[in-house]
Amino acid sequence: MAKFNENFLDLKESYLFSEVAKRVAAFHQKCPDRTVIRLGIGDVTLPLGKTVVEAIHTAADEMGRAESFRGYGPEQGYDFLREAIQAHYSTFGVSLDTDEIFVSDGAKSDTGNITDLFSKENTVMIPDPVYPVYVDTNTMNGRNIVFINGTAENDFLPMPDRSVHADIIYICSPNNPTGACYNRTQLREWVDYALENDAVILFDSAYECFISDSDLPHSIYEIDGAEKCAVEFCSLSKTAGFTGTRCGYTVVPKAIRSVTSDGREMSLNRMWNRRQCTKFNGVPYIVQRAAAAVFSEEGMKEARKMIAHYMENARIIADTMKQTGISFTGGINSPYIWFECPFGMNSWEFFDFMLERAGVVGTPGAGFGENGTHWFRLTAFNSKENTVEAMRRFTELLNTDPS
Amino acid sequence: MAKFNENFLDLKESYLFSEVAKRVAAFHQKCPDRTVIRLGIGDVTLPLGKTVVEAIHTAADEMGRAESFRGYGPEQGYDFLREAIQAHYSTFGVSLDTDEIFVSDGAKSDTGNITDLFSKENTVMIPDPVYPVYVDTNTMNGRNIVFINGTAENDFLPMPDRSVHADIIYICSPNNPTGACYNRTQLREWVDYALENDAVILFDSAYECFISDSDLPHSIYEIDGAEKCAVEFCSLSKTAGFTGTRCGYTVVPKAIRSVTSDGREMSLNRMWNRRQCTKFNGVPYIVQRAAAAVFSEEGMKEARKMIAHYMENARIIADTMKQTGISFTGGINSPYIWFECPFGMNSWEFFDFMLERAGVVGTPGAGFGENGTHWFRLTAFNSKENTVEAMRRFTELLNTDPS
Repeated sequence: MAKFNENFLDLKESYLFSEVAKRVAAFHQKCPDRTVIRLGIGDVTLPLGKTVVEAIHTAADEMGRAESFRGYGPEQGYDFLREAIQAHYSTFGVSLDTDEIFVSDGAKSDTGNITDLFSKENTVMIPDPVYPVYVDTNTMNGRNIVFINGTAENDFLPMPDRSVHADIIYICSPNNPTGACYNRTQLREWVDYALENDAVILFDSAYECFISDSDLPHSIYEIDGAEKCAVEFCSLSKTAGFTGTRCGYTVVPKAIRSVTSDGREMSLNRMWNRRQCTKFNGVPYIVQRAAAAVFSEEGMKEARKMIAHYMENARIIADTMKQTGISFTGGINSPYIWFECPFGMNSWEFFDFMLERAGVVGTPGAGFGENGTHWFRLTAFNSKENTVEAMRRFTELLNTDPS
Repeated sequence: MAKFNENFLDLKESYLFSEVAKRVAAFHQKCPDRTVIRLGIGDVTLPLGKTVVEAIHTAADEMGRAESFRGYGPEQGYDFLREAIQAHYSTFGVSLDTDEIFVSDGAKSDTGNITDLFSKENTVMIPDPVYPVYVDTNTMNGRNIVFINGTAENDFLPMPDRSVHADIIYICSPNNPTGACYNRTQLREWVDYALENDAVILFDSAYECFISDSDLPHSIYEIDGAEKCAVEFCSLSKTAGFTGTRCGYTVVPKAIRSVTSDGREMSLNRMWNRRQCTKFNGVPYIVQRAAAAVFSEEGMKEARKMIAHYMENARIIADTMKQTGISFTGGINSPYIWFECPFGMNSWEFFDFMLERAGVVGTPGAGFGENGTHWFRLTAFNSKENTVEAMRRFTELLNTDPS
């Protein structure tokens, strides 16, 4: 009898966004005349840049002519894109070989797929709150998970606890959902902890493009020694509006090695290469051309303009939090603003309260872990007009009697 | 210490195509004036159809305008494409619900990724010779593999052996590399065997579009009961030249269920949906539009024209085998021709012999399993002119003294 993977039964139902959608739909039915502003979902709204669209057109035409048609490409990505990514890293002062860079269809896939490279017998350390994919993919594999707590006390930037051992450590910085971003000293501590424990850090930098403070690291490889212990996942989803176009990149340094009990050496880079060649056929050529266009001078200008638009919205939200005296993180180096629910409400109570009273939709923090129970996420991915109006309503809401 | 997955050490080095490339390069260096014709690789050569290219242009423009921009799409694929695939299945008389259809980035990824849904404790039955991904992905998971032998005696169509038990069964029909295709009676036997054993069949139909015999099944769901035991993987790679554009589809019927020892029911369809939502973010919107264009009336006409071109080449190769009295399979319902190496040579000896004497490159059967040791694969994916010339050289070669 085919035995199904029963670890799937240990997964929590992923009902966050469907529950949000259900409650919003019910509200629409009850109050069809009310306008609802959505600051909930972490999806971009601005269209692809002109340079990117042009690159897709050119690539489509190439694919339509026999002499320039491309069939199977390298599973790791075309050199033109790997070199563009390599050059992007050099702007942070990080030097990578192109064969340490793997083009992917997004950070989500690869943060999950990387678990293929590790045995079941690893203790995995995962922050709470965080993007749920890390917990879910390791639960599917039946691994032991230990949580590290992000709380108001540590500004949602948990630090290593030497009394707790871990073999694999997920770090998301700037963090989804909290928007909190580790500085160099803090990442230095994490790298030291990983090196002391022979652990591997899985560093999700999907939001690096929103970092505006010049002294914050964009890549974990800005920390010496990280090349011996850290894999980094990044994505063009938020950088250039690629959530529906699907391209990211994963860095697996050749210096990450391990020796088996019987003395055989294993290289994580070689393993990932083998995994990708076996279970992946590369990103579409037209998408890789689109991605390379993002890294061109014009493409980067367009991307920076989009990011500036979102960051202006983030500033508006963060300013509102300051003015109303609400505790929050994010909004400066991240498109996310994470705040403590007012009136002592829990996050679902506040969700309903804000939807019904103000017609504003956000994301309950409970969806990101225990430590989000009384916290709430807003995102900068709407229009400026809607963001201003949402914040006007939010301020008004705080001055009402919640009972 | 992070413990790497040591099952990777059990993988055979995947040196087939790199070894082929190395030997061809060495030949070029030795004999720079000789023209080499490549009938080796299983990659298409004709460009994307006009309708498909137009669909990409339209989708790119949509993505470049705020009002029609698309961010995250459904992980399972857009309805417009799932409905087009559903309609395609109905042409075989197969009725599927759209929520049994999952759009993928290709059959390779999904035949590997599906292993996530099964526990390690399954015996996996894999044909030999076959596409190496099935063996490699299950080796990565440390599963027990039993092989079923494809040989000249069974026309490379191994049938169930009731004395051997399996929980998971891979079938590739039309087969890569042999081109052999199961008929209805044979698939009926496999479905019966799977139902008797409560096994799951993983049916790779990536080459279904090359089936020309009207009585051969294109889908395993043409066999009653398969909806209770079979997952099917298909791809537009070969149908419409999507090897570099990346789109396929996987069917996971809702009727495939299992009950755990403590009585909890599990649905493979729900598990796959959960896996995809957790570890995949869907296929690019522009690629899904391109794929939907393939299923349009014009798109299908273009696809059929490409397939006819390749099948004319396959016919030329198959006719040459008949005329020269060489044992072979494939070439009628498949772009692959699989033949016994002449002169009692093994497949690498024949590779060198044909390259050096005739300047023709093919793929040694040894790369697909033990049973390919004395067999060889040629593909129909070159121009007609080159195929004719290659077969002229091949015929000449057979009349030479091999010593």
